[in-house]
Amino acid sequence: MSGSTYGQMFKVSTWGESHGKGIGVVVDGCPAGLDISEDLIQVYLDRRKPGQSKYATPRKEGDKVQILSGVFEGKTTGTPISMAVFNEDQRSHDYSDIATYYRPGHADYTFDQKYGFRDYRGGGRSSGRETTGRVAAGAIAAALLKELGIVIQAYTKSIGPISIQDEDINIAAAKENPLCMANLEAAKKAEEYLELQMEKKDSAGGVIECIVKGVPAGIGEPVFDKLDAALAKAIMSIGAVKGVEIGDGFLVANRSGSDNNDQFFYDDKGNLGKKSNHGGGILGGISDGSSIILRAAVKPTSSIARKQYTVNKEKENIEIEIPGRHDPIIVPRAVVVVESMVAITLVDYLLMGMTSRLDKIKEFYK
Amino acid sequence: MSGSTYGQMFKVSTWGESHGKGIGVVVDGCPAGLDISEDLIQVYLDRRKPGQSKYATPRKEGDKVQILSGVFEGKTTGTPISMAVFNEDQRSHDYSDIATYYRPGHADYTFDQKYGFRDYRGGGRSSGRETTGRVAAGAIAAALLKELGIVIQAYTKSIGPISIQDEDINIAAAKENPLCMANLEAAKKAEEYLELQMEKKDSAGGVIECIVKGVPAGIGEPVFDKLDAALAKAIMSIGAVKGVEIGDGFLVANRSGSDNNDQFFYDDKGNLGKKSNHGGGILGGISDGSSIILRAAVKPTSSIARKQYTVNKEKENIEIEIPGRHDPIIVPRAVVVVESMVAITLVDYLLMGMTSRLDKIKEFYK
Amino acid sequence: MSGSTYGQMFKVSTWGESHGKGIGVVVDGCPAGLDISEDLIQVYLDRRKPGQSKYATPRKEGDKVQILSGVFEGKTTGTPISMAVFNEDQRSHDYSDIATYYRPGHADYTFDQKYGFRDYRGGGRSSGRETTGRVAAGAIAAALLKELGIVIQAYTKSIGPISIQDEDINIAAAKENPLCMANLEAAKKAEEYLELQMEKKDSAGGVIECIVKGVPAGIGEPVFDKLDAALAKAIMSIGAVKGVEIGDGFLVANRSGSDNNDQFFYDDKGNLGKKSNHGGGILGGISDGSSIILRAAVKPTSSIARKQYTVNKEKENIEIEIPGRHDPIIVPRAVVVVESMVAITLVDYLLMGMTSRLDKIKEFYK
Amino acid sequence: MSGSTYGQMFKVSTWGESHGKGIGVVVDGCPAGLDISEDLIQVYLDRRKPGQSKYATPRKEGDKVQILSGVFEGKTTGTPISMAVFNEDQRSHDYSDIATYYRPGHADYTFDQKYGFRDYRGGGRSSGRETTGRVAAGAIAAALLKELGIVIQAYTKSIGPISIQDEDINIAAAKENPLCMANLEAAKKAEEYLELQMEKKDSAGGVIECIVKGVPAGIGEPVFDKLDAALAKAIMSIGAVKGVEIGDGFLVANRSGSDNNDQFFYDDKGNLGKKSNHGGGILGGISDGSSIILRAAVKPTSSIARKQYTVNKEKENIEIEIPGRHDPIIVPRAVVVVESMVAITLVDYLLMGMTSRLDKIKEFYK
Repeated sequence: MSGSTYGQMFKVSTWGESHGKGIGVVVDGCPAGLDISEDLIQVYLDRRKPGQSKYATPRKEGDKVQILSGVFEGKTTGTPISMAVFNEDQRSHDYSDIATYYRPGHADYTFDQKYGFRDYRGGGRSSGRETTGRVAAGAIAAALLKELGIVIQAYTKSIGPISIQDEDINIAAAKENPLCMANLEAAKKAEEYLELQMEKKDSAGGVIECIVKGVPAGIGEPVFDKLDAALAKAIMSIGAVKGVEIGDGFLVANRSGSDNNDQFFYDDKGNLGKKSNHGGGILGGISDGSSIILRAAVKPTSSIARKQYTVNKEKENIEIEIPGRHDPIIVPRAVVVVESMVAITLVDYLLMGMTSRLDKIKEFYK
Repeated sequence: MSGSTYGQMFKVSTWGESHGKGIGVVVDGCPAGLDISEDLIQVYLDRRKPGQSKYATPRKEGDKVQILSGVFEGKTTGTPISMAVFNEDQRSHDYSDIATYYRPGHADYTFDQKYGFRDYRGGGRSSGRETTGRVAAGAIAAALLKELGIVIQAYTKSIGPISIQDEDINIAAAKENPLCMANLEAAKKAEEYLELQMEKKDSAGGVIECIVKGVPAGIGEPVFDKLDAALAKAIMSIGAVKGVEIGDGFLVANRSGSDNNDQFFYDDKGNLGKKSNHGGGILGGISDGSSIILRAAVKPTSSIARKQYTVNKEKENIEIEIPGRHDPIIVPRAVVVVESMVAITLVDYLLMGMTSRLDKIKEFYK
Repeated sequence: MSGSTYGQMFKVSTWGESHGKGIGVVVDGCPAGLDISEDLIQVYLDRRKPGQSKYATPRKEGDKVQILSGVFEGKTTGTPISMAVFNEDQRSHDYSDIATYYRPGHADYTFDQKYGFRDYRGGGRSSGRETTGRVAAGAIAAALLKELGIVIQAYTKSIGPISIQDEDINIAAAKENPLCMANLEAAKKAEEYLELQMEKKDSAGGVIECIVKGVPAGIGEPVFDKLDAALAKAIMSIGAVKGVEIGDGFLVANRSGSDNNDQFFYDDKGNLGKKSNHGGGILGGISDGSSIILRAAVKPTSSIARKQYTVNKEKENIEIEIPGRHDPIIVPRAVVVVESMVAITLVDYLLMGMTSRLDKIKEFYK
Repeated sequence: MSGSTYGQMFKVSTWGESHGKGIGVVVDGCPAGLDISEDLIQVYLDRRKPGQSKYATPRKEGDKVQILSGVFEGKTTGTPISMAVFNEDQRSHDYSDIATYYRPGHADYTFDQKYGFRDYRGGGRSSGRETTGRVAAGAIAAALLKELGIVIQAYTKSIGPISIQDEDINIAAAKENPLCMANLEAAKKAEEYLELQMEKKDSAGGVIECIVKGVPAGIGEPVFDKLDAALAKAIMSIGAVKGVEIGDGFLVANRSGSDNNDQFFYDDKGNLGKKSNHGGGILGGISDGSSIILRAAVKPTSSIARKQYTVNKEKENIEIEIPGRHDPIIVPRAVVVVESMVAITLVDYLLMGMTSRLDKIKEFYK
């Protein structure tokens, strides 16, 4: 297996290597009747595109998406939606170096161990470029969620030591700076920090936070397929993510039950509310109707221009400097990938969630 | 769906409610020829059993496991292994209170929203007792891993504010204290902290850490089914877990690439090593041959005897005190559940991992 | 894997061997709110029970089903329904013979090849007794279908050379004879034929036909998961089945398109109809609203008392007479198994079918 | 869902409509190290190409396959293999007729019922052109099987009333006539029969038989995922198939057990053999090492130029003549589709079959 298929009802299968003919995705199980266009998907892809600021690799990717199937007269037909981004530029770079050694922090060694050899050009299938397919599928999922009144917003919460406190979060600000930080002052400080890292030929990591509004209560499958469990897998499957939190996450480990329990109440109008949302909108693996909140810890870019020690295939210890210009940080480009994985997961669970109750099934098939 | 089936090759389906006739699991896909006995499984179940220390609910559960199928003359036959623990004591408790309101921090409200009603006796299917099936399956998975030279050890790393530093971890100590803490001094402090919480009729959370030794390099499926992604789901699916970390987890967000990259080297004997293991034994979603490390943040027990505010089904705001004696902390009992979910996941991935290379497949079918 | 889990939304996992502690099934994904009782399930199980006529093995099976989970106050809760039939009688028969050789027509040899050894007691997991779990799950599926106005009826269409012509089918008659034949005259002739076979210590096969009424148009997933493809797998997975037909089946191979196409029309009341139903209610893998019709070819019982040639584990050619009294035919007992597999499959597909159209999903989540 | 993903370990996801931008497939889970080229796949695609004889539609399809990912330096890398055939010719035909009515025998009506509307151009996703993706994936599966010494051969066994008796089967002959009949004399008669049908503006059906040699004993998963059950689904999922048989199929219904049981023996050299192969190489759902034999009943082409009755969307009863020239028979072009589905299924099961025994797993991971 190569684990490139995700979802039970809304199935996403991605394909493609960094420097192959192209990269793409097949979405099988999208309901019929959704308005979709290449433009709509392009908006999402452009958010993860490289070369948009000095904090991203200047590599040029055309990234123009084509819809190859599954859409007729502007609407999804219910059959598989195939989308592809073909590589405009397939010059044969010189990868002879990279082919012979194992870059620290990369999957070069593990791919070789698993498969016996690897497509070493630009990281092959383990390149961040793999996320293009996720984002194209995510754009469709997000469009579907919008029809149901559900909105997903992710943003950069911290870069290196620069972290935004909860009370200073301003989601709108995330669209106004190239780092997607949800606070413009913090964004400025983060830029300064990144400049420093770049001077040192080094890289930085950070934290992405994601908030989902409008998910009805009752979504999620108990025991193994809890909604938070699915989200954890979805997020941890993104290349550089090393930690996932739901709601208050690791903070809860040092709390009393009386502080951590979100107490229910009815307001004057008879609407159910919670006095707090430490749980992040999920109870027992099922959405409770309040905002779903999660966070991902993203490691610093593994590709750095600084000198590093490693080994080569001749079993020698060597010193390397990875050629080329690298993303000093991938957090801002990963923000839309987080949104996409959350969107895909939620659509999958909303579709699954239709089958929980006999009364609703009878109503449906009446 | 109710999401009670886990795994692709090694499929685990659990069933049962807290106060029903019993609780159990069917393991489908266990290879033939593994030595299994009820005693072996009982050892695991006893580790999660209540009533073993004053830091756990005194509720009496017999928890005597029976193997109902799939084992013949002491060995697995390759067919489904059905195991059950029948409830000895099915007195009709009085749940009339619990039936009418929604306990904060519990899944009462979300189950009602999802299914229209719920088995309210002792939490029904959302009770921690559900993990019995996981642990019985985990015992089998661990036995299989042992045959392949793989050992999983989990322990309590922190309880409330009492946290063990990495350099003070002593895994052997975890078996010598009822809190499973990997340091006896810390265990003592944690006991004091728990006494305090119990006096306040409150509860505590903590962090569980798990280390796996002996996993060969090359296990894990790229893209969506990365080994760390699967582990994240496995761990987050455990009732009270709100965060998961692989390797250094959230710490990496504030690190430079040069500090975070684990550099490879060959030692004098020609064995590959890494100068550090920040990545927790997984690169690009595939095991790299070093120890796999992960952590889970466990929330404080939601059931507390203190007064809390909530709502009832008549849409009234009410004040409750949940009757009965509760676990002041569930972390120690969850340690074996973490081990079990990791074991089940690893077996699943080791089985999947056999199909990655044509040369090995040809050798297999020669 | 041992392939004992079936279904995508309505997941059925069976377990148990012929002569083990019991046999059972876990149904995960049954919608909440369905009225279920042990009595309701027992009715189905009794239809496949041995010892009910002289044309079935006189072996005594108590076959009293117990519901162990997933039902509360008489209704399904949406969580896994575990059911078991415990073996009353576990005397240690003498299987020393059967253990040493491979019965022709049985899975003794192939199980040994696959797993390295086998539970040889009464066929172990490959025994027809395995279908008990299918039927218990089928009873639940049928109850759910009934709520949606869908009725499944299977019956014996032929036994050996005695075949009922389409125009002589009388479904009601199937309940009035021990062979479940849909025509009493044919049933009588079939009994005579079976008497003859029994005298010769031989066995007979036959054909089971199944008609489903009330399936709405639009159920089935194009391409690989066509409804007829799923039904074919469901039916072919029943032990002795060697052929499956949908609608007119093999007859269509020798027909002209003009004869075979079912032409649509609107009747006076504006209802859509078809002038014929050669297609058996399925077009392009999707139900068309007319009756679904399928047939299964069942081989003669492999266990016969006559002398046969085979081999033993010492690699010798030997002559055997399989001890005990055997079902001279399994067709009548398999009728309810066919109904069960069709019911399970249809429920699975009806649940999946809820997610095809955005307009209906929006209506659902409004 | 749209059911366009097939397989558990060797996952095939097809996409594309008859008259869209192209048609394609993603194969996820192909082991690394297999030699693959576009030429190798093209050989398979050319076998299903239209316009190759007067018994097939003269429609011109370029059908030049491109490999877009997953192959590096001529070998599979273990990552998803994306393949596409782009439509050269996308003129806007006039489908205004077809859009308004429901063709008998086609999925027009059922797609509309399921999805609310359909891509009516040339049948859209329900067109036989959908099988292009299956065949491209099948070519890869067959190449893999060849490495393991397994060969699949399908051929036409009957067309209309012209059927080849078992003793007259000559597999080599199938490559020497445009109808793929396994007997040249029968091929000639079938051509005459087809001429007659074409004169009547009518169509014909037939039977395809498939023989697989070299499958080792022990492949197949008991109970629901029996190898024959999987093959039945694979074959029945092909558009026009209405019946599937394994081994002697429906013939066994009218046989005695003593005639039908395949008796085992050891030959002089100590090799296990069977005196007959009525079972078609599968016992209890598991391969027994002898040839696997199956048959598919293919209905006559639904598209015929003759006058037919049907209904339109305005709910009127109308008379139609479907414009264009149609395949008078699709059997010969479906032969390679049958081979492909069998190949894909067998690869899937061979990969699954590696995990059945602990001793072999220990050997593998040693």
